[in-house]
Amino acid sequence: MTVESDVRDAAERARTASLSLAVATRAQKDEALLAMADALDRGRDAVLTANAEDVARAEDGGTPANIVDRLRLTDDRLDGMTAGLRDVAGLPDPVGDVVRGSTLANGLELRQVRVPFGVVAMVYEARPNVTADAAGICLKSGNAVLLRGSSSARSSNAAIVDVLRTAVGTSGLHPDVVQLVPGDSHESVKALMRARGLVDVLIPRGGAGLIRSVVEESSVPVIETGVGNCHVYVDRGADLDKALAIVVNAKTHRTSVCNAAESLLVHADVADVFVPRVVDALHAEGVTVHGDETFGARPGVVLATDDDWAEEYLSLDISARVVPDLDAALAHVRRWSSQHSDAIVTEDLAAARRFVAEVDSAAVLVNASTRFTDGAEFGFGAEIGISTQKLHARGPMGLPEMTTTKYVVTGDGHVR
Amino acid sequence: MTVESDVRDAAERARTASLSLAVATRAQKDEALLAMADALDRGRDAVLTANAEDVARAEDGGTPANIVDRLRLTDDRLDGMTAGLRDVAGLPDPVGDVVRGSTLANGLELRQVRVPFGVVAMVYEARPNVTADAAGICLKSGNAVLLRGSSSARSSNAAIVDVLRTAVGTSGLHPDVVQLVPGDSHESVKALMRARGLVDVLIPRGGAGLIRSVVEESSVPVIETGVGNCHVYVDRGADLDKALAIVVNAKTHRTSVCNAAESLLVHADVADVFVPRVVDALHAEGVTVHGDETFGARPGVVLATDDDWAEEYLSLDISARVVPDLDAALAHVRRWSSQHSDAIVTEDLAAARRFVAEVDSAAVLVNASTRFTDGAEFGFGAEIGISTQKLHARGPMGLPEMTTTKYVVTGDGHVR
Repeated sequence: MTVESDVRDAAERARTASLSLAVATRAQKDEALLAMADALDRGRDAVLTANAEDVARAEDGGTPANIVDRLRLTDDRLDGMTAGLRDVAGLPDPVGDVVRGSTLANGLELRQVRVPFGVVAMVYEARPNVTADAAGICLKSGNAVLLRGSSSARSSNAAIVDVLRTAVGTSGLHPDVVQLVPGDSHESVKALMRARGLVDVLIPRGGAGLIRSVVEESSVPVIETGVGNCHVYVDRGADLDKALAIVVNAKTHRTSVCNAAESLLVHADVADVFVPRVVDALHAEGVTVHGDETFGARPGVVLATDDDWAEEYLSLDISARVVPDLDAALAHVRRWSSQHSDAIVTEDLAAARRFVAEVDSAAVLVNASTRFTDGAEFGFGAEIGISTQKLHARGPMGLPEMTTTKYVVTGDGHVR
Repeated sequence: MTVESDVRDAAERARTASLSLAVATRAQKDEALLAMADALDRGRDAVLTANAEDVARAEDGGTPANIVDRLRLTDDRLDGMTAGLRDVAGLPDPVGDVVRGSTLANGLELRQVRVPFGVVAMVYEARPNVTADAAGICLKSGNAVLLRGSSSARSSNAAIVDVLRTAVGTSGLHPDVVQLVPGDSHESVKALMRARGLVDVLIPRGGAGLIRSVVEESSVPVIETGVGNCHVYVDRGADLDKALAIVVNAKTHRTSVCNAAESLLVHADVADVFVPRVVDALHAEGVTVHGDETFGARPGVVLATDDDWAEEYLSLDISARVVPDLDAALAHVRRWSSQHSDAIVTEDLAAARRFVAEVDSAAVLVNASTRFTDGAEFGFGAEIGISTQKLHARGPMGLPEMTTTKYVVTGDGHVR
């Protein structure tokens, strides 16, 4: 058996299982989710033992400590996973929502109704908690899921999926609605990308390289997620106290996430006052500033190159530049932003309106930290990722974004 | 200059022009649309002369009469194009629609707002009226459009786009919001498929071969349209008069369109009565029936093979089969449908509900002809095509489907 045929077999099983999941009631799905949470609680020893194998293998292989940390499961993190599954059980079911409805002039009743995609494949890196999160969100939205985690987390993922599948089966749904993709080489990702007709949507979550390769090679429709070169622009009309707080929060609140700020733009009219203040504040938090000439004149600031404007650091680094006006700020954002989240700080309504209208990003923020672009912060209750593409879903994706729609047209013998 | 660099240049110009179009008011866009309609009215001699060249070339090349007919423009068809542009001017502007909005617990104001994609590329075959329709719909939805028609319509398309661009420029918008893609070889389609980052969405409209190649090769996100292997299932609980009218209408009202019925399924319990009636009625309309053994026992019916179940005839042909029960009908539809439009005829509510729930198609119709799956019939006012994919848009696509959204988050110095 090749990896390709193994993956296709799994996808076929997922498709068959998806048929009954698509028509399962909310009560049946919630029961399965709660059973999954309970089973993970009871099965935590097996999961932690499997995780210890992954961690030991990573440490033996010289994996950097921060990556090992993302891989490591603890009782706290397992509690987070079970709480996540219970939260999803508490959310409304998007399936069956009538998005629009009307009665046409001829009496035909038209309803656009949310329905599951069918089979969703997730390709993700490192953190094994994604395994439970994705399984829960997909199950609630009526989708069978094929989970392809990273090889470094293979024992953890296998143990988690084993526990979840048993729970799903006990609850009366078919266990094949949650499957780990066989094989953890790149061949299995390739097989998923070619499984058009079996897999409805492929969602990559991880580094820019993984996402680019999936977007370019997949013939299965893709939802692109998560690369964030996010900007904060401090306008001439900014309240500089708010600006300082927002820049520091956006950069330092959590550096390894896609909605962290990576680049700071400052209007020339406030540069004299603001540049020294913000550099001092960032330095106090341990941030390295990669600045243009104006910023570079401050002690400790490193001179930036074009590579810095393009960089998603995901670390205690930020690029910084003084711009002559709002037009220049907009041009810079247009040139370098990854179209994830970009913020303006200003009290000037006209400047805010222009920034909102002309910045073409999933989220545009006014007087707020880029860190707010997040499913939980937006009140979605669960998030499968943050889409940075324009088709289907843009920004944080909750349960409704994991569905498509169908038109239901009801008549009484209507013909044209 | 290669075709690739010509296409990329056009796409760059489209992107630049799209920036001002994205923030144009509805009044500006409607003025441009009315100017386009007026200019097409005034310029009809030039367009008809150019079209006569295309028609002569097609006839000289031995193109079949029905294809030449699709290519031919007449005063009536030009009137249809100008009326279409004026209709689009009268439709609400989707840009700026607030899809959802709330104030979060921390006081942040969250708005999900419709915005244009940016640059849309259309690849289509034959009918030159699509050129004006697509230009109008894209302009109204705030998108610059790259039009890549077929080489057979090259003179017509060039003349139409020339007239439209002049009108757009006169109205004050940039003419580069409407462009014909340079080059009519397959190289230009390939260049569009590779123009990721310049082209936001690629919409193929045409035969199954064109659509399949675009879906498989494009790294630009694609909205798949229009292949329709549509089914009518006549249930045991059907009113057979309604069933007869629906089958005949769905098959014969217009045969060359994607929402025409291509396959008929009849429940065994009504086969004795219904098969003879429907065969006679279809024969009376000149339809060739490709049937299973039961249908094949009727004079004039051709025996069907598996190829017939898969076939989108687009002609006066229909495949027909007796099924033992609703389960078998659902299994047949699942196996062969192109997931465009499938209909059940029944008075039995439970059968209707199951068919609606278990058929995974863009439109599922109860006691109505498949011919109703259409933007105009659904009351959308304008239609760019019918999506048969699950991402972003499914079914007839009107103006809102030609937009994406952005989240606008407004605070007062909010940090996490």
